[in-house]
Amino acid sequence: MSEQAIAPVDAQEPPYYAVVFTSVRTEGDNGYGETAERMEERVKEIPGFLGIDSARTPGGLGITVGYFRDAEAIEEWRSDMEHRAAQKRGRESWYESYTLHIAKVERSHGFRRGQG
Amino acid sequence: MSEQAIAPVDAQEPPYYAVVFTSVRTEGDNGYGETAERMEERVKEIPGFLGIDSARTPGGLGITVGYFRDAEAIEEWRSDMEHRAAQKRGRESWYESYTLHIAKVERSHGFRRGQG
Repeated sequence: MSEQAIAPVDAQEPPYYAVVFTSVRTEGDNGYGETAERMEERVKEIPGFLGIDSARTPGGLGITVGYFRDAEAIEEWRSDMEHRAAQKRGRESWYESYTLHIAKVERSHGFRRGQG
Repeated sequence: MSEQAIAPVDAQEPPYYAVVFTSVRTEGDNGYGETAERMEERVKEIPGFLGIDSARTPGGLGITVGYFRDAEAIEEWRSDMEHRAAQKRGRESWYESYTLHIAKVERSHGFRRGQG
């Protein structure tokens, strides 16, 4: 964990893309944690990657939202070979269920306490 | 909690909208829990509401994604008087920070274990 205060990714200048991945995990780690960390490092190398937000209710739903400048950046990440291998392991072992929504952001805004 | 198994909202037929709300809470409940439950009941009455996914890492980030058929449904929810009062209390008391992204879903798909 970083020593910075936890904060969501800032609103970006539209248009940009949000890739919403909602999931329920299977029991046990099964190598998930290590791969998840590796994927989070790797996606940051994609040109046009803007940021990532992630949350998981213990024993419940997980939501990860990746932000990308354009559809080309998403396609590059989707087709990354290590990421494809991770996707396959996800279907084989890690996820009970998931839904993926690829969406173009039309508007956004943010609030930070003490910043008026 | 429902007795149904936890599962993310299914992929819908595009186009539809995802409203992504990422947040960090302040300390304490301050009436948040009761209002959150009330809002979740109320949004279900909006015509064009398709579903809601929510997750929060303890002590960390929360992400709620609401799915709506069109921009009109979002506008109806945004301008709902009870919801507006809740938004105001959110800025006054409940949130350290938040970001809202309103995005039009272009593609989606889902996976359910044991469903091929």
